[in-house]
Order: sequence, then C-alpha cells, then structure tokens
Amino acid sequence: MGVRTVNWLVVLAGGRGERFWPLSRQRRPKQFLRLLSDRTMIQETVDRVAALFPPERTLVVTGADYVDLVCEQLPAVPRGHVLGEPVGRNTAPSVAWAARWIMERDPEAVLTVLPSDHAILRPEAFRKLLRQAVGYAAETGRMTLFGIVPDRPETGFGYIEVARPGPGPIDVVRFVEKPDVVRAREMVASGRHYWNSGMFVLPLGTFWATLERTLPEVAGGAEALVRRPGAESAVFAALPEVSLDVGVMERAGHLAVMPADIGWDDVGTFAAVARIRAEQQPDRVHLDRTDDVVVIGEEGPWVAGIGIRHLVVVRTPDVVLILPPEEAQEVRQVVRQLAERGCHELL
Amino acid sequence: MGVRTVNWLVVLAGGRGERFWPLSRQRRPKQFLRLLSDRTMIQETVDRVAALFPPERTLVVTGADYVDLVCEQLPAVPRGHVLGEPVGRNTAPSVAWAARWIMERDPEAVLTVLPSDHAILRPEAFRKLLRQAVGYAAETGRMTLFGIVPDRPETGFGYIEVARPGPGPIDVVRFVEKPDVVRAREMVASGRHYWNSGMFVLPLGTFWATLERTLPEVAGGAEALVRRPGAESAVFAALPEVSLDVGVMERAGHLAVMPADIGWDDVGTFAAVARIRAEQQPDRVHLDRTDDVVVIGEEGPWVAGIGIRHLVVVRTPDVVLILPPEEAQEVRQVVRQLAERGCHELL
Repeated sequence: MGVRTVNWLVVLAGGRGERFWPLSRQRRPKQFLRLLSDRTMIQETVDRVAALFPPERTLVVTGADYVDLVCEQLPAVPRGHVLGEPVGRNTAPSVAWAARWIMERDPEAVLTVLPSDHAILRPEAFRKLLRQAVGYAAETGRMTLFGIVPDRPETGFGYIEVARPGPGPIDVVRFVEKPDVVRAREMVASGRHYWNSGMFVLPLGTFWATLERTLPEVAGGAEALVRRPGAESAVFAALPEVSLDVGVMERAGHLAVMPADIGWDDVGTFAAVARIRAEQQPDRVHLDRTDDVVVIGEEGPWVAGIGIRHLVVVRTPDVVLILPPEEAQEVRQVVRQLAERGCHELL
Repeated sequence: MGVRTVNWLVVLAGGRGERFWPLSRQRRPKQFLRLLSDRTMIQETVDRVAALFPPERTLVVTGADYVDLVCEQLPAVPRGHVLGEPVGRNTAPSVAWAARWIMERDPEAVLTVLPSDHAILRPEAFRKLLRQAVGYAAETGRMTLFGIVPDRPETGFGYIEVARPGPGPIDVVRFVEKPDVVRAREMVASGRHYWNSGMFVLPLGTFWATLERTLPEVAGGAEALVRRPGAESAVFAALPEVSLDVGVMERAGHLAVMPADIGWDDVGTFAAVARIRAEQQPDRVHLDRTDDVVVIGEEGPWVAGIGIRHLVVVRTPDVVLILPPEEAQEVRQVVRQLAERGCHELL
C-alpha cells in the first residue's frame, strides 16, 4: 500500500428486500438479520475486514430509519459515521455522499466499498486479495473492482469482461448486463468473464473526478449533503436514482478487476441461505428422518419435522414459512398477497 | 323407547394419547382439542347427542387431572357428574363406576357409552340409529354395540362378526381381534363384519349382572367408589387394567349389533384429521400454489406455504410440526425423542 494512503471502509446498508420475509420486515431488512451465523450480515461484513479497517475509518450508508439499528449492531462505529438516507436512490448517491464525507477528512483516501449483505466463505483469501487491490489502487490511482470467478452460468448477475484471464489486476474490457443462459454459458466457458460483485476499491481522487464527469448532479448533491447538514431530505428528493455500476463504472474507463475465488454469494434468497448453511440447524429444531431440510431463524417456535425432504422452514415468533428452495424467488409474491389481504401486521 | 326407561349418556374421556403432539400435551389430550372444528372433540361428542341426553343425564368419566377441563368445556354438565379417575385402568372400570353411580339414581336406566374423541360425519344418521338401539336395548334388555360398516381392510381395529348382514339389530357371533390385512380383506368382503367402534348401549340391569359375572372385582370396586367417596385412590390402585370389550363384552354372550354407516372415524392420527378436514384451513394461514396441505391448530404463528404439497402442518404457540400424513404414526416416536433430549417443557 502507498505510504501516504489512508484506507476507509464504506459499507452500503440501504437494502429493503422482501425476499427474506418473514425474517426481514419493513423495519428489519436482510443486512440486519442473522441469516448465516449468530452475527448479522452487516456484522459479518465488518468483522470480516476488521483487520484492515478500524471502526474510526468505517463509514456506513443506510436508510434514515435504520441508523439506530446500525449503531446497535455495530457499536464500535461512531454514530457520526452512520449516514442515513431519507429515501433510497440506489448506490451512486450513497457512495458519492460517503466519498465527499471522507474527502473532508482524508482527501488522499482509498475507499473500499462493500455491500452489507453478501456471504464470503473464504474470508482469508478475500482479505489477501483486498490488501492487494487496495495497494494497487493506491499506487496506480485506478478504480479496481472485485470480479468473482463464476462457477455456474448465472443469469441473475452482471458480468465484467476482461482482456485476459487472471490473476489480477486485469484491465476491464466491458460490462455485460444480466445475460440469457446461452450467453452466460459462453462467458463462464471463456475464462475472461467475472461476476460483478458490487465490491469496489476507489482511490478518492480518481473516483471524484469520474463522478463529476459522469454524474455531476450527484457530485453536487453529495457536496451539498456535507456542506449543509440537515438538508438531506431536500437534497435527496432532487437526486436521480442510479447505481454506481451503471451511472459511474460503466462510463468510467481505465478500470481494473481483481479476480476473486473467495466463496462469494450474494445470498439473494432463502435458497442461497439453505445452500450455504447446508443442514446446519439453529437451536430448538428436531428433525426425525428428514433429508435436505434447513430451518432458518433464531427466534420463534420449535420446529419439528418427520419424514420430510427438500424444504426450507423459516421461523419467526409470529410467522412460519415453508417452501422448497426453488420457490424462494416467490416470497416477494406472498408478501404482496398478504398486503392485499390487509395483513399489514405481518409485513 | 320403553316408557319407564331413563336414558343416560356416559362419556369416556380418559385418553392420554401422544399421537397429537404438539397439540395434545400431558395436560391436554386429544378429547380436549379443537381438531375438527371450533368445538373440541368432547364438546362435539356431547353436542351431537344433546337432543337425546340433557346435561342432567350426562356423566363423564375422565382422569382426575382433567376434571376441571371437562367442567370448563362442558359447563352445562353438573360438576358432580364428572368422575375423576386417579389412575387410568382402561374402560371396564370407567364404565363400571359410571354404571354403579347411575344405578343409585335410576336402576332401570339404559346407558349409552360413547368415546369422547371420535368423529361422526353423518350425525343425523347416527342419532336415528342410536334412538333405535336405545329402544331395542330397553325393550329386550340386550346389550347392543354399534358396528361400523367397514369401507377398507383396516388392520388397526377389532371387528365384530354377525350371523347375517344388516339392517340391525343383529346377533353377535364373535369378536375378532385386530386382523392382518388378508383377514381384514376377507372380513370386509363378507358383509358380515363390522368395526368395533367402542360405542355401546347398555341396559343397566343386564350390564351389572354381566359385570358381576365377568369382572367381579371391578363390580366390587365400582360399588366401593360409590359408597365411599374419597376412597378413589385406594380403590383404583387395586383394580385390574382391562377394557370393556375384552373384560366384559367378549365374554358376555347374547349381544346385538346395530350396523352403522355414519361416517365414523376414530381420528387416530393427524392423517385422519387431515383427511376429514381436507383442505379446510383454520384462520391465519396463507397458502400459495400448494396441494394437499392441511394446517391444524387454532393458536400459534401464521403458517405460510409456497409450492409445497402433501403435508400436514401442526401449529401451537411453541412448536410447529411438519410431516406428510403417512408419517402421522411416528409422532409418538418424536415425543419420546424429545423426552430423551430432556425437552420436558415441550411435552
């Protein structure tokens, strides 16, 4: 790493997903849940890189409603380091605000931007690559993305195409939007495509210059947020809704990718949770001659199963949800149906 | 019915089954549960024949622990009409005690003895046959059993063989213990075998004379119970454990059967409950594209299911049990496993 560089961690915790109902509710989305261990997803995210980023150089951007929850779950992070967005405008405004806030303190910083709700099953390998990426970005000034080595023709992610296979860092050739399965198979076979994981290492000077060029209104908004505390509602109301990938990265040029084979999973649905946890059960579960059954949820009633197979059981104190993993995408639909039924106490 | 006859209803409510866990617990066995409707099994039993037996001629025999529960669920029945057994000794002592208790008041009575935890889906047909059986028993002095017209080669019930097919009343030829499936098939095909439903119409004089001959120690115990209130524990400790069928009926002779095609079900397991209720769900259930799923239990969390099939879900506030109906016999095994794990709060 460059000698003069100060490294900051920026954790994006603005998600409001419905795919983890009934565990997640309007008041407690996925990043605040204990989905994979006895730590919540955001706690795991911060724990995983605690050796690289002390709490005083950790910044969290979340919804205004969740600031208290973040402070509760990450008590070491100073309350002033938790930025609460009055409305969600996707990731470009979040990262812009964080960048501008850090610029006031450490204009030479390198930012590591991480989503707060992904799994990384090989954290040591991740930390090694992250140190390398941060050093590279500091040295070269290049914005560097983590590209996940794909192990299946996933159609739910964006891909990054590079000039040659790893190891990294490697030059980015182009971004590929969510592909169909034929194109996805080709890309996986090529060895020159990685999943875009939403993890970025951003030298602040390069990022800010790129932001001013690609999304000047967002750069201006971020500056207003830092200069005029209390103006969040007015500023956010005027900001466009745009992701960092689409709004900045795809239009940036001169990007690098760090290929990463780190057991990454975006934990998009209960199916992913079940896959990652395998048959590792929480407490207060009794299964008799069952196969491929995973219970998710630390609270709520005991779950007893007899002779069942291939099911995910999600428990909370007031709802128990039962589904095969391949139906996990349909949870949102049930949330909508319950809203239509007027069952607002469950949402 | 004979002019001088007084009819009494005797409800047997001593069961302690484990097959309905987690709904049934040590403190609340099957007959006190709302398994089939918003009335409990014992309430349904009494409601079903309320036109024939007013509360002042209804007697309930139950475990001493359940007397309060019976009084709560059957508030119209006088508290003195609920006999509490300090220990269960099967049905012969229960019916003997009831008979001797009624003999003090109405020595000419005809007793209708009914289990408190069975389903009868055609109650009007049942009442018609019951009136007929009570009239016949009163007129002839013959003990008359209800024989259920079998619709499958069930190996879990005892059968009653008769001299000729119905309609009844018909003479009993012999009792057949639980058969193997080959024998069961033969009996169903014969048209001369009925399931022994545990429902009896007993002219008191005949019954008492038969009891004194077949189980004199039980007759003596019953007399002691009536003559010496407070002696229940001492008396019951000395009584043999024996069913009315084996101890009295199979050795009685001169019995009649009333064949009954009344939609009877002994509701032996959750599979039977699911079959009877079909897809009729309780409140607070949300099923999305499910098939052959039945939720049982009025209390506890919401149950939501997505894309699941052929399952019974039993909910209580502290346990949710999930099983396919064909595993319903295994619930007892799980109760034992939980006891071995030391989970006594669940039992």
